[in-house]
Formats: sequence, C-alpha cells, structure tokens
Amino acid sequence: MEIKKIENPRFLKQLNITELNQLSQDIRDFLIENISQTGGHFSSNLGIVELTVALHYVFDSPDDKFLFDVGHQSYAHKILTGRASQFPMLKKYGGLCGFQNRQESIYDPWEAGHSSTTISGATGLALARDLKKEKFEVVSVIGDAALMSGESLEALNFLGGIDTKVIVILNDNNMSISRNVGGLSNFLSDVRMSYQYNQAKNNYTEILSQSPMGQKIFDVTKKVKDKVKKKILLDTPFSQFDLDYIGPIDGHNIAELIRALETVKSLDHSVVLHVLTKKGKGYKPAEKDHSGVYHSVAPFDISKGVQKVVDDEKHSWSQSVSDHIEYLMSKNDDICVITPAMITGSCLQNIFKKYPERSFDVGIAEEHAMTLAAGLSQGGEFPFLSVYSSFFQRAYDQLNHDIARMHLPCLIGIDRAGLVGGDGATHHGVFDIGLIAPIPGVVIMAPKDEVEAQKLINTAYYNKDYPYVMRYSKNKVLNTHQHTDDTIKLGQWELIKEANDAMINVVTYGDNVNAVVEMAEADHLPINIINARFIKPVDTEMLERISDKPIIVYETDLINGSLGSIMSLYYEKNHIDVDMSFIGIEDHYVTFGDNESLYKQEHISLNDLKNKIEEIKHEKRKN
Amino acid sequence: MEIKKIENPRFLKQLNITELNQLSQDIRDFLIENISQTGGHFSSNLGIVELTVALHYVFDSPDDKFLFDVGHQSYAHKILTGRASQFPMLKKYGGLCGFQNRQESIYDPWEAGHSSTTISGATGLALARDLKKEKFEVVSVIGDAALMSGESLEALNFLGGIDTKVIVILNDNNMSISRNVGGLSNFLSDVRMSYQYNQAKNNYTEILSQSPMGQKIFDVTKKVKDKVKKKILLDTPFSQFDLDYIGPIDGHNIAELIRALETVKSLDHSVVLHVLTKKGKGYKPAEKDHSGVYHSVAPFDISKGVQKVVDDEKHSWSQSVSDHIEYLMSKNDDICVITPAMITGSCLQNIFKKYPERSFDVGIAEEHAMTLAAGLSQGGEFPFLSVYSSFFQRAYDQLNHDIARMHLPCLIGIDRAGLVGGDGATHHGVFDIGLIAPIPGVVIMAPKDEVEAQKLINTAYYNKDYPYVMRYSKNKVLNTHQHTDDTIKLGQWELIKEANDAMINVVTYGDNVNAVVEMAEADHLPINIINARFIKPVDTEMLERISDKPIIVYETDLINGSLGSIMSLYYEKNHIDVDMSFIGIEDHYVTFGDNESLYKQEHISLNDLKNKIEEIKHEKRKN
Repeated sequence: MEIKKIENPRFLKQLNITELNQLSQDIRDFLIENISQTGGHFSSNLGIVELTVALHYVFDSPDDKFLFDVGHQSYAHKILTGRASQFPMLKKYGGLCGFQNRQESIYDPWEAGHSSTTISGATGLALARDLKKEKFEVVSVIGDAALMSGESLEALNFLGGIDTKVIVILNDNNMSISRNVGGLSNFLSDVRMSYQYNQAKNNYTEILSQSPMGQKIFDVTKKVKDKVKKKILLDTPFSQFDLDYIGPIDGHNIAELIRALETVKSLDHSVVLHVLTKKGKGYKPAEKDHSGVYHSVAPFDISKGVQKVVDDEKHSWSQSVSDHIEYLMSKNDDICVITPAMITGSCLQNIFKKYPERSFDVGIAEEHAMTLAAGLSQGGEFPFLSVYSSFFQRAYDQLNHDIARMHLPCLIGIDRAGLVGGDGATHHGVFDIGLIAPIPGVVIMAPKDEVEAQKLINTAYYNKDYPYVMRYSKNKVLNTHQHTDDTIKLGQWELIKEANDAMINVVTYGDNVNAVVEMAEADHLPINIINARFIKPVDTEMLERISDKPIIVYETDLINGSLGSIMSLYYEKNHIDVDMSFIGIEDHYVTFGDNESLYKQEHISLNDLKNKIEEIKHEKRKN
Repeated sequence: MEIKKIENPRFLKQLNITELNQLSQDIRDFLIENISQTGGHFSSNLGIVELTVALHYVFDSPDDKFLFDVGHQSYAHKILTGRASQFPMLKKYGGLCGFQNRQESIYDPWEAGHSSTTISGATGLALARDLKKEKFEVVSVIGDAALMSGESLEALNFLGGIDTKVIVILNDNNMSISRNVGGLSNFLSDVRMSYQYNQAKNNYTEILSQSPMGQKIFDVTKKVKDKVKKKILLDTPFSQFDLDYIGPIDGHNIAELIRALETVKSLDHSVVLHVLTKKGKGYKPAEKDHSGVYHSVAPFDISKGVQKVVDDEKHSWSQSVSDHIEYLMSKNDDICVITPAMITGSCLQNIFKKYPERSFDVGIAEEHAMTLAAGLSQGGEFPFLSVYSSFFQRAYDQLNHDIARMHLPCLIGIDRAGLVGGDGATHHGVFDIGLIAPIPGVVIMAPKDEVEAQKLINTAYYNKDYPYVMRYSKNKVLNTHQHTDDTIKLGQWELIKEANDAMINVVTYGDNVNAVVEMAEADHLPINIINARFIKPVDTEMLERISDKPIIVYETDLINGSLGSIMSLYYEKNHIDVDMSFIGIEDHYVTFGDNESLYKQEHISLNDLKNKIEEIKHEKRKN
C-alpha cells in the first residue's frame, strides 16, 4: 500500500484482517524509514501501529474523537488521516507537528505534550456531547506511566462516579519513557503475568476447539474461565474507581483488537480497555531498549541503530549538572536525587547506579516529586530534584506551599529551559522565571558555562540557606572534565566584558552570555556584557552601576515575568531613570521547529540583538 | 482534667481507657467552647479527638512525627502539646496558628494548608530517617477527600513501590468539607457498609466469648473471619498500590484505636490504617450537617448553633458571582459549572440544585477540574470553574497547557483573592496575578463591585474569545438585587474619580477601588483614581494618559508579578518616563490574623496610601 496516498481513514473499513496486518507492516516500515531520517518519537509510535489501525477500523474519526496521551504517540494516526507525505518535515519549522494538533487536522480534537490530560479532556468532551444530546465516541489512548500520574487518577476517580461514556484505552508497554515505578505498576505486572498464563491456556483451547467434542470442552472451560475472569476483574484498580475493565489483550493482534474495540463501543458506560503493546515493536534494537534510548531519537542509520556519540568536547547541560552532583555525592553523604521519570533524559544513570539508596525515580509525578523533596529536606537531607522546565509547571504549588513557605533548603534543577526546538509550544521552557521569581525566598540561578554551574551548585549545597533553582537549556555545553569547590556570592552578577568605548550595557544569562561575548568580540561591538547569573536576587549594586547607559536585556525566554520585567520593577521602584530595551519572546506561544528558525521568527537571534545595538548607537550619535 | 494545664503529652501514658475517654470528653468540651467563641475549623477537629489522644498514647511525639493533612484538624494535637491556653487567640494576629506550624512547636514537623501533601512529606521524612539510620515513626493523618486527590495517589503509588515505613492513617469521615465524589469514595462506602455488618457479627461473638465453650466457637469463627478479611484486603485500593491495609476501625473507640495503632507501630513496613470518624462528633448540629456549614465557623452561640445570617445589603463575592452565573444559566443552555469540593464555600448550592446535569463537583482535584473545563469548552460548552486563589496554584499548568495554549473560551473564578485573614500564609491569594499574567492570551479581570462583576462575566460569556479569569476577595460586596446584560470593552479601564486639583494618579482594582474613592472624598485628596478592572490586557491608552503625573499603584497583593510589575514593564518597554510608587506586599509570606492587622503590618492599609499621597504632595510642592 502506498502510504503517502492515504487521504483519510475511510478505506480501512473495506480491508480484511490480512490486509490490515499488511497495512500495519507498511506503516511500521514507513515510520522506521522516516523517523530514522528526521528524528522524532520512535518506540512508542512503533508500539501502537496495530492499535491505531484497529481504532480507525472500528470507530469513525473525526466524528468519534481520539485523544492521544501524550500526543507523541499519534504518528500512525497522522498517517491514517492523510498526513504521511508531511513526515519528511516532522517536527521541523513549518512542518508536521510531533503531537496531535488541532490546527493541523480535523482528526485531532485535542493537543497534549504534558502527560495525563486526556482522561479529563475526554470526560469534558463526553459530558458536552451528552448535554448536547449528540452521539459519538470519545476515546482516550493513554500509556501506563501517564495513567499513574495524579491528574489521571483524579480523572479516573471522577469518571467512575458519573454517568457518561468515555473509552479509556490503556496502552500498556510496561515502560513509559524508561521504566515504571510504584505499587500500581506492580499490579499491572501481575496482570501481564496472568495474561501470559491465560495465553498458554488459550492455545490449548484453540486446539480443542478444532473438533466437535473439543468444542464442547472449550465451551465449558470458557464459561468457567469467564467466571474466574469476572472475579479477577473485581480486583483491578479500575474497579476500585467503579470503572468497568476489559483485558488485557494483545495489542499487536488486529483481530483481537477489533473484537475488543467493538465490545467497548457497544457498551453504554465508561470502560478501561487494557492493551498490551511492545515499545519499539518491529525494530529489534528498540524492542530490546530498556533505558529509553529509542524513546525520542535523532536521525540514525537503520542498519546500525542509534549510536552513542561520545563528544569529549561538549556534552548536555543535564550531563554536566548530573556529573557535578555525582562529584558532590562522592564527598558528602546527605544528598538525595529525585527525578520524575527522567533518569535517561536528565542523565542520572550513573548516580542511580552508584547511589541507589539515595536516588528516587517517582514516575510521572511532579507534584509528589517536589513534596518528597520537601520531606527529605525537612528530614535533614539535601535533595536535588531534576525536572524539565515545562513539566516543572505541574509542581508550582509544591515549590511555593511546601518548599519555599517552609524555607527548606534544596536544589531544583530546571532542565530544558528556554526554547527546545521540535517539541514546540507544549515543551518550550519559557515560563519558569516568571513563575518562580515571585515566590518569596527562592534563589534563581542561570549559569553561563559548566564551571559556573558547578560554583552555583556548590553555593546552594554548601550554604543550605534557601531553596535554590538552577535553570539550564537543552543545548550542549563545553565539558571541562574537572570539578571546582568554589562558590559564588549570593546575587552577585558578573561584568564579563567591558568595552572601552562602551555605549550600551547588555544584560543576559545562561547560554546567551558566551554567545554575546563571542559576537561582541568578533564584531567589535561597543557594549559591556553583564552575566545575570542570579535572576533572583538580582545584583542591585550592578543594576545601579549600569543604569548610566542604555540597557538591553537580552532574553530568549518570555519577556513577561522574566529578567527584564524584574529589572523594570526594580528601576521604577527605586526611581532610577534608565533607558531600557527588551529582546525576548512576546506574549504568545511559540511553535515548533529548529531553534535557529524560531529565534529568527521571534526576533530573539543574536542578529536581532546586533540590530538593536546598532539602532541605539545611531540614536545616541544623533543626539 | 484542667485542659489548659497540659504541658506535653507524656502524662497520657499513665492513663487508663476510662481516663482517656474522660480526657477526650474534656478536650471536646474545650474545643466546642473555644471555637464557638473564636471561630475556626470545627467539625473535623471534633471528629478526630479520640484518634489524636490514641496517637499520643501509642507514639512518642516529637520523636515520632505526626503530619496532619491538612493541618486544620490538629487542634486536639495542639491541646495535647501544651498550646491550650493560646486557644482564645486561635487564628488571631499574633496568636495560635490554625494549622500545624513549625515555628510554634517542636511537635509540629510539617505545615500544610493545601491538601494531600503529607504522604509525600512523610515519605521524604521516612527516607531521610532510613538514610541516617535513625529510628522513629512517621505518621500521616489524612482525610478521605484529601486521599483521593492526585498528589496523594501519586504518593501512595510511590510509597507502595519502595522499602520504607510510613503509617498512613485514613481519617475517613465520608465528608471532606461537604461530600465526597468519585468512584473511590464509593469503594470507601462499601467498606463502611461491610464494617457495619462486621460490627453486628462482633457483638454476636462478644456474647459467645463470655463462656468457655463460646470462647472456643469464637476462636474458630475468628480464624475464619481473619481468612475472609485477608481475602477482602486483597480488594482494597491500597493493595493495588501494594500497600498493607488494616481496618476499618471505630475512630471513637479509644481501646480499639490503641490496639490498631500498636499493631501498625509493630509492623516493619508501610501500612494504611482506615479509621472511621464522625465529623462534628459530640455536637449534634455539626453531626447532622451535610453541607459543610460546620466545617469552618465564625463565632456562634453553642445553644443555638450556627445561624444563617441573611444580610440583604451585602453578601459574599462568591454569592454575588454565583448568582449572576445562575442568572446567565437561566437564559442560556451552554454553561457548565465546576468546583473542586467547594460547593458551599463558593455558594454554588442553588446552581447545583437547579442544574444538576450542568454542575460538577470533582472533589479535591484542581488539576482535573481545570482540564475538565478544557474538555467541556472544546466540546462547545462554556465552563465556569470556581476555585480559591490559593488552591488554583495546583492547576497552573492546566490553565497554561490545556486551556490557554488551546485558546479555549471559559471563565475561571478566582475566589478568595488577596489576603484572607486567619488562615494565613497557606491560604492568602496573593500569587494569582503574577502566576497568570505571563500566560499568553488569558484575560484577567478584577471587578470593583457587583454590577461590574456582572458586566465582566457577561464580557467573558458573550464574547467567548479568550479564557477569562476573574478574581474577587473573601470580603463582602453590596448586593444590588438585580442583573445587567451589559458588557465592558476588553481591556478598558475606568477613570472613576477625577479631582480638579489632582496631583497624583492612583491605580487600583477590586475592593480597593471604592475604598480609595471613599477615602479621597472624605479627605479631599488631590488624586485621580483609576479602576484597573482588566489586569490583562492593560489599558495602554489610559497608561499613557496618566503618565503625566506621579502614579501610585495601590495593591493589597504581592508587588512582584502583579499590576505594578506589569505597568513598570509597559512603561520601560515604551520608553515612557513616569514617576511610580508602589504599595503592595513585599517579597515574603504573610502571617495569619485579621486583615486589618495584616494590612498594617504589611504597610498596605488605606492609611499607608494616604501617607504616600501626602509624601508625594510635599515633594512636589518643594520642587
């Protein structure tokens, strides 16, 4: 089947099981070929091909609504709804979104880059449908890890108590991004084990059913089995939520999937259908991956698989921070590390291996992660919680109410701060400064390079006087291969470059510091450059000192709430006249694409900074 | 027993059951008498007396740690730890905190005004204990509603998967603040029913056990019963989380409580102890209360009970907003109302009675509440979600990622905005503006009075162009007894009072508008007063117009992030020279007490505004 010719999913209804299997194989081949070229979410999409085919076979999208949780497992859905030809532009600027996207297609009724929103969203859609007396099905397709997150559990609890119909499909690959944690996942393991046992029995009954006598035996055993199954059903977490439960079924057996989906379609009440899938199905290295290397991939050679690239020069900020935490842990025995399901993403593998008793993966549970850190700190430990900026948003209240309000020392690593490229609006880490800065007594830090990051981490760890937040980007950073024990005075900025003919003071932080320094040196720009490595508290002495010249605050984050906002308030409050200009993201969401294109679109590139410098220079010369 | 003479809980250990019962009675009498005079959380504290006495009998606080979820049920604990004499100053400025408070007592190892944090916190404390090889017990005492909230479920899931010991005591009064919702609560109902059945059987076996022969029969049936119980245990939500479960037991039977607590103390692993208590126990009107009137009370006459005060002149902002939503619902059939467990607090009783199919109480589940609103909006309904400012913090990510990013029209009512008095730091609604303003495409409104609130609600409802947020305080508002269908132009401020001799422009919003107008008229202050009813978008025309005179931004919220911050950025960005002064809360948490004292302490009273006006006047005259 020519995958790129698919315009909509209607053709599916005419196919038989063999053809549907062939279609699934074609989609899988297409995905492997395309994602290996563009990069993107890999394993989860390979795991869900048959399920997606069966969904479109049984249901009538777009009338029936599919909500993928999170949307990065919707590639097969995109293919079946006429978007295959756009895959070469997957996650590229102006191209195909890596998640469900309402602007992109009428087949996408929901968007989600953060996990565990679809049961709530589906319940809202279903209730709206009931109120309007419309008839269609609402289906939430949710992974096992996303299901165990707080919001999903709240939604299940609510759904179990009301009279509507939502179909929740538990796409259980026993993995999430890397592995699952917690008691509930043990329960799912038990279900999977009993399933394997049942399958062995099924094979036996299948043989029986091939003779008339055998058929009778089969019928009887089936009845018994059904009773037993019913008994087991009473024992699922879903029955505790008062929800009907069917499963588990084989997520790669299209006939079985269609039967099960037709059953749940025929019901008049909400139900959880438990589907077992294999992450990475059909591509051996991904099937064998247990650490999440194939969760989201850069382009790779299909024949060789994803290769670990060792770059002695540079590594990720996550790695850099993690290395220094590990260094501190080797010298001190009061540091604990917490991650919400991001051991691989946050480069914490070594720490988890070396210090298992001090390392906690809580699953997709940012709220719990933050309050757990509060408890550890209150118990005399020094917690380091590493969380992506965008996902930190889930734990705002816990940082405020539990950690800051109780003045509990800790270090929160805000990873993936700033624009993150292809994942787009749901993942850009551009809100954290505005979110955190108004929380009393929190220190916010943004290192320019690895050595400074180490010093700032030391500042937090050795002083233990405040909750500290340190933000760093998804970019690479120079690897120094060593560690320092130095600290930096709280709130002290750095005048990193002074020009003799300076006409303008440029204030910036994080990766932008060295980028601006390089540009200024290359282009002989008449600017002083100030490294605002503490975003809170700000360096008031420096703020007063630099107010004598025009100031450009150069941020690649949201302007509203970020450093420029904080500085404006400071100057107005202290009646200091100053000529300020702002480069940063205006009041809107930023789309997906490579950061270079996004910087250009948002007018936050180094070039925009240079233009602004030239503009001010000319104005000044005119005066 | 002289309650006020209790210095610490050590004396308890010497008492027998009769004496412990008498002590409980004395504490209960003390609570009824004191809370009826001071006001405070009532029913939950009456319900937990015997449990608290038994906890202090079995465990050794402060070595063993009790974490109350939320801390407002800790009054008996405060009495037993030597704080009874401070009860006349309960929740008053400089007095006794209404929650657990670490500054107040070494017996308070945790603080919580937001629900569902203690299992996470207790787990952190327990892990820290294990790492330091210390020996003590960590006990989370949590209500049934708080247990069903997302963070608690995340914490239970985590706790079930790790090797430590936390004792979770489920204080199940089947009520939460008003009633419980969701499938899980049905499960708890089933457990309660089976418990009543068991109790009947227990009476039977007790009779049996009084003769030697009967004793034998009793022993046998007990064994059988234990087996059955074990089977039932497999069926609890806690076993799904891989957690041991004991209960339910009678929370007003001290002997039974002590036995159960000694059992859980002797275990070497985490356990959930299910205790059934009666909210309001010992005070009949509170026992019969199903709507939550006795949850948190103002002072009342013990002999008469809480009297519904009907004030035709004024009512609460919650009532005012709710009335107008009800008015709109009577004319339109696309409005839905959502509350996270606050039907009574948000005055939604009438709406829930009249429009049950359009009204959703989701329990303590702010995250789910917000995404449910997103789903309803996406399904073509117009959701009104009413949530306290401080609890809204839990749903920040959902407002950002689900509602604003998908441009879904709705109205979020931010109730209890600003300082809320006696509940203190955990409940003050002073963060919401700073939190919400940087979210792209959200409108933030703050009405000065009831008519303006109606117009702003209409603006949101009839335009359906943005997600709208409207914030209002815990104060009373003049009741107009009528409804308007007018709207207000998006972002348009109001120059509400112009003085001929005006030297200063005062910008304020909400309740403060009329308060400032009254003061200006009474004292003939030379000020113009601007009602910033839209905090986002701001009225840029007005901002430019008022920049000719010194501006005072008068806020009774946090300065950082709020209107003054937003205006500062606007002026700096647009290079408009302006002389600004700020009255608002500085960068710290605000304690509890009456708002008048708090306003004085924070220098945000009308008097502080007047002083600032005088100061500027004199400066100007000097120049």
